[in-house]
Amino acid sequence: MNTVELSLDDIFQLAFNCLTQAGANYANAEAVADTVMRAERDGSVSHGLFRIPGYVATLKSGKVNPNADPQPEQVTPAMVRCHGQNGHAPLALARSVEMLAQSAKTCGIAALSLTHSHHFAALWPETEALAERGLVGFACVSYTPMVAPTGGGEALFGTNPISFAWPRPGETPLVFDMATAAMAMGEVQIAARDGHQVPIGTGLGPNGELTSDPREILKGVLLPFGGHKGSAISMMVELMAGPMVGEGFSFEAAENDNGDGGPPQGGEFILAIDPKIMGGDNWAVHADKLFNKLEAMDGIRLPGQRRHKFRQDTGTRKVNGELITELRALTAIAP
Amino acid sequence: MNTVELSLDDIFQLAFNCLTQAGANYANAEAVADTVMRAERDGSVSHGLFRIPGYVATLKSGKVNPNADPQPEQVTPAMVRCHGQNGHAPLALARSVEMLAQSAKTCGIAALSLTHSHHFAALWPETEALAERGLVGFACVSYTPMVAPTGGGEALFGTNPISFAWPRPGETPLVFDMATAAMAMGEVQIAARDGHQVPIGTGLGPNGELTSDPREILKGVLLPFGGHKGSAISMMVELMAGPMVGEGFSFEAAENDNGDGGPPQGGEFILAIDPKIMGGDNWAVHADKLFNKLEAMDGIRLPGQRRHKFRQDTGTRKVNGELITELRALTAIAP
Repeated sequence: MNTVELSLDDIFQLAFNCLTQAGANYANAEAVADTVMRAERDGSVSHGLFRIPGYVATLKSGKVNPNADPQPEQVTPAMVRCHGQNGHAPLALARSVEMLAQSAKTCGIAALSLTHSHHFAALWPETEALAERGLVGFACVSYTPMVAPTGGGEALFGTNPISFAWPRPGETPLVFDMATAAMAMGEVQIAARDGHQVPIGTGLGPNGELTSDPREILKGVLLPFGGHKGSAISMMVELMAGPMVGEGFSFEAAENDNGDGGPPQGGEFILAIDPKIMGGDNWAVHADKLFNKLEAMDGIRLPGQRRHKFRQDTGTRKVNGELITELRALTAIAP
Repeated sequence: MNTVELSLDDIFQLAFNCLTQAGANYANAEAVADTVMRAERDGSVSHGLFRIPGYVATLKSGKVNPNADPQPEQVTPAMVRCHGQNGHAPLALARSVEMLAQSAKTCGIAALSLTHSHHFAALWPETEALAERGLVGFACVSYTPMVAPTGGGEALFGTNPISFAWPRPGETPLVFDMATAAMAMGEVQIAARDGHQVPIGTGLGPNGELTSDPREILKGVLLPFGGHKGSAISMMVELMAGPMVGEGFSFEAAENDNGDGGPPQGGEFILAIDPKIMGGDNWAVHADKLFNKLEAMDGIRLPGQRRHKFRQDTGTRKVNGELITELRALTAIAP
């Protein structure tokens, strides 16, 4: 693969320039570019520069507000609401996390409802930001229909990721962030391209049959992870990131989307809990007993550790050369 | 199978008599017997009278406090804590749910930490009680180690169920309640007895190998549902129902247990959210759009409907005759 080495500052600047060139104001471009840089930094490349063409498409089509000025409001001492003003999610999230964290530290528990926003990134930046403040974090979003409920044959649920973060004072937090689909659509596409099989249960072919052929699944539909149990969790995400926060379902997001290839409008639910208020002073020392047991087992790696290992390297990152050429073209002033 | 027909009142009374005969005071026996009767009523027989010998064992061994007098306390406006006084969980839950619900209706979100309690029932009574008050409910408990983390070979996690309930004004709530193990231990035992195979992924044999032979899994260990994703959720339950609420892990519950066959001491985490405060007035009408889509699909049944169908029948229930003989012996005064 043709790759280009970029510093983290270069990655941020390239993303920022693409976004401002497409019309985003300084604050919005900075928030998105920071999210993108952190994904590249942490080895989460599918949420890095790879997403910039999608972000740019939503600005060019006029679907996303380039000047969104989201202002979180304190609905109750334990609840924060943020209307995203149809902007990209990162600025709304960056502005809301501190109010959410303070609410949780006051009340022991707090939640954020984010609406009218366009989410196109991983969830771990949100939950990890809470864990870095000593809080347990949970977040979920829906997307557009790609996943059939177990037992049904049509796409209704999004890939509907959930993320959980547990703070570890003096150490990197434990964080997981996973789609409730059996496999991400991108991975199915790569398997199809490379001629690999996928496990039975990944998805259905065009006639609703279980298949290990990724080319058939691309004509059909993904399935939730873990059969009917994963399907129930995916449904829970639809409800939590939808009507519970005052937003729509995946199928409504698709109905209302202009098809520009970037993220549709949707909601996000974020929960923050102060384990010291809820569980008492011993919570962190106590939790380490489980982590020690897990780390003593062969074959177990605590979730989130890979990202943190990447993060310690502040040097350059190798990025796909064709993508860089495409992005540099986006930063040029149109003729 | 030899069965006996009992009215719901008879089921309650038989459970109550077994418990008081084993030393439980009126309030505790009533709360447990009510939980047991409701499980039999709703067709959830594995949580019905079947559990009474286990409850009785914990009273006879002295592990469980027969006179527990749990008093929920308001820690913050959004957080309720209940020390279970080493009693069975149902009385503590019955006394805490109203304070939790009121907190959620005031703050939009609230949580309950239940500690020093012995949980041996389903979780849907708790989450459904919240949904009946117009609240979204979520609950989880850990238990004793039966499930190996994916990638590891030793039991560390409990079957660690999670339950979620969504209120539907004028209709029965949507409720799921599921172990995060691939299969309940009782189902594996039944498959072994009947000579049936179980799906690959249910558990590992004694040498750590994947097997579809339930007899081998009984010598080995269960696995989480859904591979590493389900394993991450099971770990989340260990943390939420453990140090987050001020209680122990499954492996600690087992270490501290006297092996009387009844439930060990553990914690429970319950979350309640007011969707009207968080999502606005349209939340219920909006959510029905998803349920209508699901119900229009062949092969889909909304979770919780089977239980509610059973509930409409207020007549007698058929109960295993040998169990009834055993329980009636427990109600007799010892010679």
